[in-house]
Amino acid sequence: MNGYDSKTLASPTLLYLEDLVVGQRFTSGIIEVEKDRMVSFAAEFDPQPFHLSDDLAKGTLFLGLAASGWHTGALTMRLLVDGGLPFAGGLVGANAEIQWPRPTRPGDVLHVDTEILDITASKSHPERGSVTVRCETRNQRNEAVQILKIRLIVPRRPA
Amino acid sequence: MNGYDSKTLASPTLLYLEDLVVGQRFTSGIIEVEKDRMVSFAAEFDPQPFHLSDDLAKGTLFLGLAASGWHTGALTMRLLVDGGLPFAGGLVGANAEIQWPRPTRPGDVLHVDTEILDITASKSHPERGSVTVRCETRNQRNEAVQILKIRLIVPRRPA
Repeated sequence: MNGYDSKTLASPTLLYLEDLVVGQRFTSGIIEVEKDRMVSFAAEFDPQPFHLSDDLAKGTLFLGLAASGWHTGALTMRLLVDGGLPFAGGLVGANAEIQWPRPTRPGDVLHVDTEILDITASKSHPERGSVTVRCETRNQRNEAVQILKIRLIVPRRPA
Repeated sequence: MNGYDSKTLASPTLLYLEDLVVGQRFTSGIIEVEKDRMVSFAAEFDPQPFHLSDDLAKGTLFLGLAASGWHTGALTMRLLVDGGLPFAGGLVGANAEIQWPRPTRPGDVLHVDTEILDITASKSHPERGSVTVRCETRNQRNEAVQILKIRLIVPRRPA
């Protein structure tokens, strides 16, 4: 079932709202995208020719087998949860913007570079705030395969 | 591996750019979200307490087990590919905006309502255009669990 084990970072200290500053950067561990899992993910969730086999993908605009964008998104989440973005309270997003500038290919080794874009204290919930981050998922050539801008809820450190 | 079989629509006629108009609506088939698959998806891609077990989820802001947003996104894609959005050339998005207004829960039965928001002919590629759609993924109470706005490339009918 679990086709991946991301190489996690040494268990990082969890960060609260007051530990964060705009411009702060984080780098995740890495994960290799296995071809068999790429295809089985697509068979379950995104069964289109360019995600299912080399032969079917050849004549398409992808010019070869490409991961479903939802697979790239899910792998990005795994990298973030495994220490790539060590926010206290976990990673819960209410809304996001996402771009897939190029396909993820079989055998790609992905990591995620994250930068904090904005921090806003909550007026109605003084115990927390919202933090907007930009997460660039990059392959082994450091090319971006996904750019995710997402707003997360982050708690203040308990008194 | 494949925990779902969406109840697909009768195989729909594929639509080309000239078949589409702003305001046109589409409704997908349905898919039931199985609890075991919800948990195994989270174990692989989004291993956070509120996605992994009833007990772990109780004390969190989700107040109970909730699907990873990426699982909701992947299921939405399956419903769209299975006839929910029958565009010629397949469903390929370069960028998207996504909201998760409420969680997907075990046993939810999802469908996707889509509306065409914008159609733009390509100047550089006369054989195609881009179509922006709003896809609302709704549960059995017709509550939106995901709102996806995505721009897709759609070909013109071959001469």
